[in-house]
Amino acid sequence: MSRKISAVAAAISLLASSQIYAAPKNIIYMIGDGMGPAYTTAYRYYKDDKTTKTVEPTVFDSILVGMAHTYPDDNTVVTDSAAGATALSTAIKSYNGAIAVDTKKKPLKTMLQMAKENGKTTALVATSQINHATPASFAAHNESRRNYDEIADDYVDVKVAGKLPVDLMLGGGTKYFIREDRNIVSEFKQAGYQYIDNLNKLNTIESIPAIGLFAEKGMPYAIDESPLRLTHMTKKALSLLNKDKNDKGFFVMIEGSQIDWCGHANDIACAMKEMEDFAQSIELAKAYVDNNPDTLLVITADHSTGGLTLGADGDYKWERDVVANVKNSVKTITKKLKDSKNIERDWVELTGLEYSEDIAKKLTEAKPNGDRAIFDVINGYINQASYTGWTTGGHTAIDVQVFAHGKGREHFIGSQNNTQIAEKLISFIE
Amino acid sequence: MSRKISAVAAAISLLASSQIYAAPKNIIYMIGDGMGPAYTTAYRYYKDDKTTKTVEPTVFDSILVGMAHTYPDDNTVVTDSAAGATALSTAIKSYNGAIAVDTKKKPLKTMLQMAKENGKTTALVATSQINHATPASFAAHNESRRNYDEIADDYVDVKVAGKLPVDLMLGGGTKYFIREDRNIVSEFKQAGYQYIDNLNKLNTIESIPAIGLFAEKGMPYAIDESPLRLTHMTKKALSLLNKDKNDKGFFVMIEGSQIDWCGHANDIACAMKEMEDFAQSIELAKAYVDNNPDTLLVITADHSTGGLTLGADGDYKWERDVVANVKNSVKTITKKLKDSKNIERDWVELTGLEYSEDIAKKLTEAKPNGDRAIFDVINGYINQASYTGWTTGGHTAIDVQVFAHGKGREHFIGSQNNTQIAEKLISFIE
Ligand SMILES: [Zn+2]
Ligand SMILES: [Zn+2]
Repeated sequence: MSRKISAVAAAISLLASSQIYAAPKNIIYMIGDGMGPAYTTAYRYYKDDKTTKTVEPTVFDSILVGMAHTYPDDNTVVTDSAAGATALSTAIKSYNGAIAVDTKKKPLKTMLQMAKENGKTTALVATSQINHATPASFAAHNESRRNYDEIADDYVDVKVAGKLPVDLMLGGGTKYFIREDRNIVSEFKQAGYQYIDNLNKLNTIESIPAIGLFAEKGMPYAIDESPLRLTHMTKKALSLLNKDKNDKGFFVMIEGSQIDWCGHANDIACAMKEMEDFAQSIELAKAYVDNNPDTLLVITADHSTGGLTLGADGDYKWERDVVANVKNSVKTITKKLKDSKNIERDWVELTGLEYSEDIAKKLTEAKPNGDRAIFDVINGYINQASYTGWTTGGHTAIDVQVFAHGKGREHFIGSQNNTQIAEKLISFIE
Repeated sequence: MSRKISAVAAAISLLASSQIYAAPKNIIYMIGDGMGPAYTTAYRYYKDDKTTKTVEPTVFDSILVGMAHTYPDDNTVVTDSAAGATALSTAIKSYNGAIAVDTKKKPLKTMLQMAKENGKTTALVATSQINHATPASFAAHNESRRNYDEIADDYVDVKVAGKLPVDLMLGGGTKYFIREDRNIVSEFKQAGYQYIDNLNKLNTIESIPAIGLFAEKGMPYAIDESPLRLTHMTKKALSLLNKDKNDKGFFVMIEGSQIDWCGHANDIACAMKEMEDFAQSIELAKAYVDNNPDTLLVITADHSTGGLTLGADGDYKWERDVVANVKNSVKTITKKLKDSKNIERDWVELTGLEYSEDIAKKLTEAKPNGDRAIFDVINGYINQASYTGWTTGGHTAIDVQVFAHGKGREHFIGSQNNTQIAEKLISFIE
């Protein structure tokens, strides 16, 4: 026995010493905005192959390693996306609304800026406007997430070692980057960036540096249009970064931005399609790591949104088929039903639910009260039929999950503060 | 570099081979009934030392290793405690209501029975009646959790290798164990068990075998009486098991039964006091492992209850001080306010909230509608003031956490089915 124990001890000490050399060359950091543990759980049941007895594990299940605490530095316990992303990008907690500034509103150096400083290629990918809270907290500094123009300005004004900070940007936001007072896209072009504004022409980007802006603000919901737009952007980004052949490697942050937006709307079908797009993006990142073992993939969320629960009002079930049959976001269904010439047919087609006199009555009653009232009727029926619960139109403080794959993954096992995720990544970048 | 890689490879292979020898002698299995991830998160903020800048990690944070999928084998997605405990005790999923029987109602051998078969000392500790769903699924077999008398009978009738299955039982349940038709306590006594029925006399138990039943059904809520009764029972159980000096070791299942009950009531202060009792019990188990490295501690939950969220109705905060100031369970507060001669004074004293005309009016209106109506008024105010959200009086399907410490803990890292937790433990017992 003692021989065995000393062999194990030797093995452990060998492994421990090898950690020193474990800094990965490339880092893929993915953030599911609003993706609390109820979302990854729901997604598993949503994707379940019902012809088999067991519920198949998802890509999330294959790489779960821990959880993270999301509270901001302002005693509220519940974070917003700005404070969340600031913690995840700088390792320092701040107040809700802060974009990479501390509680005294002083700029905090982000891990993307450190990566650039150290010669890595840098990239940001999101389905929101690319200057929205999460991506913004990697390349800009502002006292308020709402100062979209100022934040967009930072993407060209806040240079790192004399260079523009982000080599590749894919997302939405033309409204902020092509303005009457300043055309930032022109400035990017003058600096040698290729620019495209059509998602269908993603393959025309030939090399880094480049910027693609595919919507005025955020891109449309996955459930309403182009369901795999994040997956396409992720594929292109990884291919460009690979082709770039920077021997210092790369840092890319990829955000599933709109899981959160569907959560704020308490729209379960919308949320599940965003999860699908994010999950398929993760599959690509995971495959990249498998082919490039010098890469670390870390995935987490900034917070959970909506207080989503599977099961509600005392019932012990969740009907994923109801969710899968919804054809559009409830926002879009609202618009379509308002203009409908045949409400019964369109209701059945769009929601997948049966029509009834009760529904007709409620929709008629809601109509004079505006879109929000109609939205609430439709959403109420879908949530009720699927046994989906929600407690809020805002965020909650529940811990989020941490997923990791590739070189250095073992450092992320267990429970940690969101700032500790950033600390570990920064230790690999510095 | 290649020398470094081969050293690491050698280390990994050494570690892998050493796993074969890693079966721990003693197993401490703890189940927080209803303890989904929102509960462990809430507990961290509830316990936060507000004089420090950071929120201190809890005992849960120190040993988190993964998460588990809780769905039962009946297409509902949402499990009850019986199907949950059956999966956790036998490694086989069954239908809601099943006590260690499969979907065809055939008995399934439990890990406690296997432990006994293999000569280990066995124990069950719970704050519910000791024949409630979770402990029952370790020592009894029944098509329905509701057959409490039959389940109690099994504790003496279902022998393992000719012996009684459980050597030590601590919990509630005199109603079921001392009946007009059968006195099971007498049968235990005849078989050599020491019996006590007073929690204050816990120290009079001198050795195993023994049974302690401290309530007719479940023990009182921690918040209403004896706040650390599970901690006291855990301490006694571990001390007796240690003193027992069985060279085959022991298997003990310790349940924090009433986290779930407070969750069903949507009573946040009640839930936090149950979490406190469970957390302190875990501290003892963790210390036992540190002193007895041949022991494995595994902790999980069967499901989450109530759809608890921190933050509700659009507000980005959770007020732990409001929760900490509540003096009793809302059930008990309801009773006390009904009989109160000075409602204003007692309201302030019991809820910690200010009294108002609005409260007076609502309480007066509720009174003729019975206890449930009064309960809802009181609970509504506490939840609103603390920004606590709930979606259901039942269970939800969110994944639960897995915690492990000691010998073999590494096997529980990552995402897993609840049956896989049982499979791994059974592989250590068999
Ligand atoms: Zn949000
Ligand atoms: Zn329950």
